[in-house]
Amino acid sequence: MSGVVRPEDGSMRELLRVGPGPVDLAAIDPRSTPGLPRAAGRGSARKEWARSQVELIGAELGRQQEMLYAAAQVAAGPGGATSAPTQAGAALAGNRPRRVLLVLQAMDCGGKDGTVKRVAGAMNPLGLHIRSFGPPTKQELRHDFLWRVRRALPPPGYVGVFNRSHYEDVLIARVEELVDEATWRARYEIINDFERELAEQAVTVVKVMLHISHAEQGERLMERLTDPTKHWKYNPSDLDTRARWDEYQDAYAEALRRCGTDAAPWFVVPADRKWFRDWAVAHLLRETFDSLDLGYPAADFDVERERARLRDQGSE
Amino acid sequence: MSGVVRPEDGSMRELLRVGPGPVDLAAIDPRSTPGLPRAAGRGSARKEWARSQVELIGAELGRQQEMLYAAAQVAAGPGGATSAPTQAGAALAGNRPRRVLLVLQAMDCGGKDGTVKRVAGAMNPLGLHIRSFGPPTKQELRHDFLWRVRRALPPPGYVGVFNRSHYEDVLIARVEELVDEATWRARYEIINDFERELAEQAVTVVKVMLHISHAEQGERLMERLTDPTKHWKYNPSDLDTRARWDEYQDAYAEALRRCGTDAAPWFVVPADRKWFRDWAVAHLLRETFDSLDLGYPAADFDVERERARLRDQGSE
Repeated sequence: MSGVVRPEDGSMRELLRVGPGPVDLAAIDPRSTPGLPRAAGRGSARKEWARSQVELIGAELGRQQEMLYAAAQVAAGPGGATSAPTQAGAALAGNRPRRVLLVLQAMDCGGKDGTVKRVAGAMNPLGLHIRSFGPPTKQELRHDFLWRVRRALPPPGYVGVFNRSHYEDVLIARVEELVDEATWRARYEIINDFERELAEQAVTVVKVMLHISHAEQGERLMERLTDPTKHWKYNPSDLDTRARWDEYQDAYAEALRRCGTDAAPWFVVPADRKWFRDWAVAHLLRETFDSLDLGYPAADFDVERERARLRDQGSE
Repeated sequence: MSGVVRPEDGSMRELLRVGPGPVDLAAIDPRSTPGLPRAAGRGSARKEWARSQVELIGAELGRQQEMLYAAAQVAAGPGGATSAPTQAGAALAGNRPRRVLLVLQAMDCGGKDGTVKRVAGAMNPLGLHIRSFGPPTKQELRHDFLWRVRRALPPPGYVGVFNRSHYEDVLIARVEELVDEATWRARYEIINDFERELAEQAVTVVKVMLHISHAEQGERLMERLTDPTKHWKYNPSDLDTRARWDEYQDAYAEALRRCGTDAAPWFVVPADRKWFRDWAVAHLLRETFDSLDLGYPAADFDVERERARLRDQGSE
């Protein structure tokens, strides 16, 4: 199948899945390469191999994405294409067209932007719905923490990517004490309910933590401080966050442990090696699409009659 | 410069510009290849050459796009990234970060989706803001025709792509008589005012008509009726529209003639050859970016001090 080599020792969904139950992030080596097949070769050759595999997987993802999109277009009826965000509540389960949502979380410099560029960039931008979450605006703070998340969901037929997400509300909100403990503690269950609701509404959620080491973060921050074309990515507050590394790791571990459900599983991708990170996320998406068993929708018109009409109009 | 070969006989912006003033679409051959350099070779080799050039131009566009994005991030302040649509009225001129907006119009099968896939697909999806316009919804019909367009504008720092646009309101609305003549006649000036307003708000608009022939449209429609994986792209009403080809060409010619302004110029891209279409649009975007003279923003923090802080935290 188009030169794509499958992971070894199982699917990436099996190899990288964590939770529910205890998660020990310190036991997952950020430089490890689970599932990488022997075909990748050794040393620096692996990087080139992985990059070319991501291109090939991307072409497959593009085909799957088109089928997802096509189903939604046909379901919406003539001219029914929509690119407007759809309210979660408006899309019922059953025959509603499916959506896929990739949730990316990581410490600063963890590679969220790079993953979007390389993996989402290999798909058709027409079918992508990418949303980044920064600090909540005044308007957003007037609503519950999921309000802005519901508004950012991909419409039916789209592949959504969340660059950060509602998990910040149990990560930064917890570590920086933006809300009291009772409030963030209650959020794990609220998130699980929300994600179960998404599953019922035909939204397939893939949650990925890009797992980097403290040392790798230090190197990448120094790079941003050294290369003037990267200064814009740096913010002095990044070092305050870095100083609380262990607290953030604890917060991540608890989020993974409590919200790694079957309805919306969490995957930890070792991310110190960028080429492995992209390769692993591409396979996670490919396997997710494969499990959906998508196909092109049948014509909802009389094909032969339309061919005759077209010929009568003198196209040939 | 990275292997990108410039167009011959002038820039694509010069070669493809039409309006203001009379536009004779029948005089523009949809199979022509203006600006294609001798380096492209002959026959089928040109296609491969153009495809590889689009990749190279895409890498340049990606760098330009990053500078656009970086400027907006820095202007927004710490954590100020936003992917939410910005009201046109909220972004003032002056030091406001720039946005670029590519408007794509074409007859059915003209290649709008393909252009998005190939040209926008060569950029970083994180900085793209793609919006498709179908028939107006009930809610949209309760407002003036530009209401939904203003809401779909790219935020500062983003490259927007309109897949169809407010021009449908002087194209399909005119030919299918969805509004009376006085109404659509008044829209040309309303559009010119709107686009002048955009220019003042640092939105650089590039309007492209993908120009295909009646025969090519017939072949592409037949392909959609022949290949089951393309049935979903076909709609029986496409043939009703095709039957009014000349009326649509007249409506296009008037829109180009009346709205091909210096503030928001129109370009006609011969589009029967897909590889030429993509190559031409990629160059139009590249030339547009070049004219903006973008650069990376300077650090708004003390770089040496931050490097010292990072070292003190023990990154190395």
